[in-house]
Amino acid sequence: MPAPAEILKYIDEHQDAFIDRLAKAVSIPSVSGDPARRKDVFAMADWLKAELESLGATVEKRPLGKQMLDGVELDLPPALLGQLGTDPKKRTVLIYGHFDVQPAEKSDGWLYDPFTLTKDPEGTGKLYGRGSSDDKGPILGWLNVFQAHKELGVELPVNIKMCFEGMEESGSEGLDELIEQEKDKFFKGVDCACISDNYWLNTTTPCLTYGLRGVNYFRISVSGPSKDLHSGVFGAAVHEPMTDLVTLMSKLVTSKGEILIPGIKEMVAPLTDEERARYEAIHAEVSDFDDAVGAAITLHDDKVNTLMGRMRYPSLSLHGIEGAFYGTGCKTVIPASVHGKFSIRLVPDMTTAKVTECVLKYVKEEFAKIDTKCKMSVEMVHGGEPWMADPNHYNYRAAHKATEDVYGISPDYTREGGSIPVTLSFADALKINVLLLPMGRGDDGAHSMNEKLDTDNFIRGSKLLGSYLHELGASSE
Amino acid sequence: MPAPAEILKYIDEHQDAFIDRLAKAVSIPSVSGDPARRKDVFAMADWLKAELESLGATVEKRPLGKQMLDGVELDLPPALLGQLGTDPKKRTVLIYGHFDVQPAEKSDGWLYDPFTLTKDPEGTGKLYGRGSSDDKGPILGWLNVFQAHKELGVELPVNIKMCFEGMEESGSEGLDELIEQEKDKFFKGVDCACISDNYWLNTTTPCLTYGLRGVNYFRISVSGPSKDLHSGVFGAAVHEPMTDLVTLMSKLVTSKGEILIPGIKEMVAPLTDEERARYEAIHAEVSDFDDAVGAAITLHDDKVNTLMGRMRYPSLSLHGIEGAFYGTGCKTVIPASVHGKFSIRLVPDMTTAKVTECVLKYVKEEFAKIDTKCKMSVEMVHGGEPWMADPNHYNYRAAHKATEDVYGISPDYTREGGSIPVTLSFADALKINVLLLPMGRGDDGAHSMNEKLDTDNFIRGSKLLGSYLHELGASSE
Repeated sequence: MPAPAEILKYIDEHQDAFIDRLAKAVSIPSVSGDPARRKDVFAMADWLKAELESLGATVEKRPLGKQMLDGVELDLPPALLGQLGTDPKKRTVLIYGHFDVQPAEKSDGWLYDPFTLTKDPEGTGKLYGRGSSDDKGPILGWLNVFQAHKELGVELPVNIKMCFEGMEESGSEGLDELIEQEKDKFFKGVDCACISDNYWLNTTTPCLTYGLRGVNYFRISVSGPSKDLHSGVFGAAVHEPMTDLVTLMSKLVTSKGEILIPGIKEMVAPLTDEERARYEAIHAEVSDFDDAVGAAITLHDDKVNTLMGRMRYPSLSLHGIEGAFYGTGCKTVIPASVHGKFSIRLVPDMTTAKVTECVLKYVKEEFAKIDTKCKMSVEMVHGGEPWMADPNHYNYRAAHKATEDVYGISPDYTREGGSIPVTLSFADALKINVLLLPMGRGDDGAHSMNEKLDTDNFIRGSKLLGSYLHELGASSE
Repeated sequence: MPAPAEILKYIDEHQDAFIDRLAKAVSIPSVSGDPARRKDVFAMADWLKAELESLGATVEKRPLGKQMLDGVELDLPPALLGQLGTDPKKRTVLIYGHFDVQPAEKSDGWLYDPFTLTKDPEGTGKLYGRGSSDDKGPILGWLNVFQAHKELGVELPVNIKMCFEGMEESGSEGLDELIEQEKDKFFKGVDCACISDNYWLNTTTPCLTYGLRGVNYFRISVSGPSKDLHSGVFGAAVHEPMTDLVTLMSKLVTSKGEILIPGIKEMVAPLTDEERARYEAIHAEVSDFDDAVGAAITLHDDKVNTLMGRMRYPSLSLHGIEGAFYGTGCKTVIPASVHGKFSIRLVPDMTTAKVTECVLKYVKEEFAKIDTKCKMSVEMVHGGEPWMADPNHYNYRAAHKATEDVYGISPDYTREGGSIPVTLSFADALKINVLLLPMGRGDDGAHSMNEKLDTDNFIRGSKLLGSYLHELGASSE
């Protein structure tokens, strides 16, 4: 059942007030990565807590301890654990968002002050400002829904639990521990979760996101002499670490993107017909990729394989070499120690442990084939598991129907090529289905200059979140 | 014929005064690469000119024009063209040296102030100071010889022409043009040349150096997207420039140092028995290389092949990649454009033109084998020819005999793996035999902190230069 018409009408009629509230949120420069602005993240938590309480929620500030940043000890901003409704006959949905933002300076190339919401300067409905789309707009979308229900006296169709954090842009420090601590306390009884913190694939089609790739980051170190050497003096006299490293790095992946490490592609879950159909239905073209990267360099010439490359297959990227000459111009150096960096994106049924095992074994075997006196070591620097939810779960079906209710079309079913770690934290700790339900468009520029949220996405997005709650409350599965 | 005994005795007896003159030279911080010290290079030229004139030489200061350095126009220090003796019955030898020095700051790790000559602080005869060995000591060696002859009234056995420059540490700007201009004027009638601006291979054995490797520096550029991409979002969707570049760089040289580019090793002059015997006679061990580089990483396990690797065979070194991630830590970037840097050291009968032709052809062919949509270009950034003199020329035989006269042993015959461009300038423009006759030891630390010249090398080295002139004057070839 869609949200009642009066709710949708209320949202439409209060558009200006909602945008004003977003402007207030954007004006608090809650940059979690900047120690000088840490106090603003705390201010943002207080502001959000007060707003939620004014809408009837009970909200608890949960301190998350301290962190070391650039040698200084800083208090971590609190997480907000909120609750609205405790009816045991209703489903309970957990909603997540983050109220911190990426750094932004006008001098980075912003058209407008990043911490002033600039409303529709071009007559196309864009709301410019840091955090407008990532992730203050989506959080305020929920508040808009709560306000409409409260003001109209309409009962919420589900119980809401909220987890809003202020460190997402800085590694979500402290959050995993909180989720673990509270999984049988605050989070007890949660039936499913909804996170609105990613983006449509394009600028026109709403989507539901049901998968994320994991990532294992590796470093291969090759060392030889005790200091950098002059290639005139020692070239052709000694083994050179760069030669060995480049040899090893050339054995990892082909120019066509095929991973050469035995055992990796064997782990990938086979493609089903149902799954393939989902990619065929996505509103995208190969030319969208060309436009996004600024060149016609897709590995495949068809839409489905291009989308699957990004979403459901692993990748291996060579990022660079530490310790070698990297400047412009010429330097005739034989670098003493070099460190090759590469990472592998993981998809089901790959695991970081199994991938690491395959990589370490293979790199060591390949190094043993090289006739060199240099030394080599390889290590996995960090790893994150892939995640995939069942897109046929009632949580997704509710979001599907809500999209049809509000937008009149079926959503794209997408998987993200990158990671959103909190997704995995909730899915694993609470053993629940998690839905990623984005509000913004693919061109919002979340971590770039001139971040924006379209007014239509903010307002229809708020209706979408409201309808999602009603569809969720009405479904009997 | 060795230098007369009275000359050798004079040099011994005036050791302290000679060291004092070296101290005066070192105290002028003539760093050619530092605009703030450019005036000191001019002061050094004036001081040296005055010293030479006081010993009877005629000296002309030759302005070399201007240069742009860090956006500032600077006057180039003058070259000094000096002359001592014009007897048409005598041979004329050209001597070269440079009176500028590398930068040096006490804070770089110097034990003593780099611009104060610190005399024998450890009781082992070392004279510490920037320029003591590179190249003020050798220049003053010639002055010591001239002074002994003048004071004792002994006629010089040859005519001397001198070319001393003040920009050697900064690319010898302006010198090639001067040599070209003056080849049929000032330099007319020069029979051979002697440059004392390199080092013994070890710390005990004098050497004559008769070859230098050339160098061709290359850049391979591979580009794909118009900006750096996130590997989560685009990994396995697009072709990655780094993958293609690493593939290309892996095809250039093996870990054993074998150059894989067809046509390169075919250009190398075949090894003769006479030549091999010269390497066998060199006072060196593989362990000297291990000590120099701080690890047992020589490509060969025997002395002769290790020496020949450095001296008479080409090498290919991979220096690094511009445009890729080079920092510590992890960055999941797909770099948009990457530039691989490598260079090849050239030996007779390789030429920069032929090497460039082989490299460009091969890299393009190898790139064509790669199934990619990225773009590639390859260019030779700069090139320098190899040089080799006839070590049986009378110029070398004179130096050989002088070494036996002064040190009582035969010198090592060495070739340098790197380049000393002025050697080639004189050899090519004047069509003369050039001898490299080093004064300092292999551990003098010419471009490092704590540069030193041993007192014995300064004093016996002065005797060597004097005896060389007498052997040169006496030889009838």
